[in-house]
Amino acid sequence: MQRVPYQQMRDEFSRVLLKMDFSKERAELCGRLFADASRDGVYTHGLNRFPRFVKYIKEGYLNIHAVPELAEASGALERWDGNSGPGNLNAYFCMDRAIQLARKHVIGCVALRNTHHWMRPGNYGLQAADAGCIGICWTNTIPNMPAWGGKEPKLGNNPIVLAVPRAEGPLLLDMAVSMFSYGKLESYALHDQMLPVDGGFDADGNLTKDPKAVIQNQQPLPIGYWKGAGLSLLLDLVAMALSGGKSAFQVGTMEVEMDLSQVFIAFDLSKLSGNDLILRSIEESLADLHSSTPVREGLKVSYPGERMLATRKENMAKGVPVEPGIWEKVLQM
Amino acid sequence: MQRVPYQQMRDEFSRVLLKMDFSKERAELCGRLFADASRDGVYTHGLNRFPRFVKYIKEGYLNIHAVPELAEASGALERWDGNSGPGNLNAYFCMDRAIQLARKHVIGCVALRNTHHWMRPGNYGLQAADAGCIGICWTNTIPNMPAWGGKEPKLGNNPIVLAVPRAEGPLLLDMAVSMFSYGKLESYALHDQMLPVDGGFDADGNLTKDPKAVIQNQQPLPIGYWKGAGLSLLLDLVAMALSGGKSAFQVGTMEVEMDLSQVFIAFDLSKLSGNDLILRSIEESLADLHSSTPVREGLKVSYPGERMLATRKENMAKGVPVEPGIWEKVLQM
Repeated sequence: MQRVPYQQMRDEFSRVLLKMDFSKERAELCGRLFADASRDGVYTHGLNRFPRFVKYIKEGYLNIHAVPELAEASGALERWDGNSGPGNLNAYFCMDRAIQLARKHVIGCVALRNTHHWMRPGNYGLQAADAGCIGICWTNTIPNMPAWGGKEPKLGNNPIVLAVPRAEGPLLLDMAVSMFSYGKLESYALHDQMLPVDGGFDADGNLTKDPKAVIQNQQPLPIGYWKGAGLSLLLDLVAMALSGGKSAFQVGTMEVEMDLSQVFIAFDLSKLSGNDLILRSIEESLADLHSSTPVREGLKVSYPGERMLATRKENMAKGVPVEPGIWEKVLQM
Repeated sequence: MQRVPYQQMRDEFSRVLLKMDFSKERAELCGRLFADASRDGVYTHGLNRFPRFVKYIKEGYLNIHAVPELAEASGALERWDGNSGPGNLNAYFCMDRAIQLARKHVIGCVALRNTHHWMRPGNYGLQAADAGCIGICWTNTIPNMPAWGGKEPKLGNNPIVLAVPRAEGPLLLDMAVSMFSYGKLESYALHDQMLPVDGGFDADGNLTKDPKAVIQNQQPLPIGYWKGAGLSLLLDLVAMALSGGKSAFQVGTMEVEMDLSQVFIAFDLSKLSGNDLILRSIEESLADLHSSTPVREGLKVSYPGERMLATRKENMAKGVPVEPGIWEKVLQM
């Protein structure tokens, strides 16, 4: 396995982005967000996604100089227009605004419209947690999942993130509401592996563990069947309504996945009393979770984000694993 | 099937509660919230739950005169202490406070600690939607679901609600993060039916559709397997942290399920511009959903809350279906 030092990966991404005319500050932040994804084991939305990001810029879908514009400010909620700028920079900006609003109102919310794919969702949860805030955020996507009981892709798999700060490293849940994201499906397909559990429907409408059939039919299974399908619709319509932007259905009428709607909520825990007790309660819950009798010997029950922290530690020590072909491509850019 | 007029059911509940020394206003609201659940088809948390509610009061777990007390007010978020009062009255009060905060700050959040089971979760989403607000709320519960890969009940099935107002009746998602709530499991078990999909683990740790095995082992399946397990933990710890109350683990150390932590968030859409357009976008998304080709002939794709509205219409016209034995019991109270 080829590994690359984290800092080198960041620097390479920044170099490419600078060459594409990003400002220095934006090239560095954008490069960092891509590198952070790979560092934490989310390779699909780190290095592996970088070439497509560059391609979209070259094809003109994405305006690298566009910054979010305040559309409406009122109380603890703000609406921003992403102006089709880079999705990760827009999202980072909006979670930062949500944190600033939370510093003032304890809870802060920013709804963002007309933005591009935010790449790794978890980055913005970590951003909130690093600022001592609980962070909740979600995005809609193009329709890529069937309605419950329907055949065509009608719903987005709308990833949602919840993050809670902790001294030992944040709790981080970062999940699409499909059983497997397309990134995960493609990764299983690439390695000719079957999914560990049913991940969607085949051409005959039967549940299947075959990632290739799921991708081909665009019928991934929602988490909790009808429950995840319902959750997808509500996350989509709430993001649309709060941002005044496009719904997944409307995004589906665009040439590529763009003009997404997103919501960022931060809660400033430092404004609330009894934080020492809360932190102890969290550790107590995690210790109880760890005390579970595993269903199979050798298995270990873990909390959301636990394996990420372990992967980060390993990748910072040994270097970040890369697909040699993709890394080579970036070096040539 | 025995049916009872909605208003008669409300009046009977109120009568019983008045007799138990509830104030007139509280007896009427509490009775209404139970009757609304049955009216909308959530029989498990309407009439069928009422006798247990009365039993808890008689056993002294629940202080009928206790009202929520402001613990901390700051900006757009407030912390309230439920003082072990009736869970549905406490929850109704707190969603109302969240709506009032949203009237001022666009987003409003109330975190409630030390409260009892709120009965039907959807009631508080409907309450927000009736006020023209998007409503999001959730609760923790006693540990009643295994951690992913573990054997003992360590997580709550922590129901979450999302509601969006609409002229034709709100969109309402009301779901536990287990594949089936215990109410649903018990209902299948009572009628000797198997679950339509895997709903938990049997004694050998295998996935099963047998509701009795799931109940006996206290191992319901989280929605989306590891995803729902992660979501459960985060919803629990966020509710605990924001309210300064107990975690699911701590609730599990109590004699009965009490001292729960809950979060109520409201967004006042009337404070945002472009609402006509948003309402049209919602209808457009629902029309697109309805246009799905069904996976089986005769099936119809529906949105969250659609069947509830149909059930409500039928029950208001024909009367609310009741289990004769339970209804008789209430009449005798």
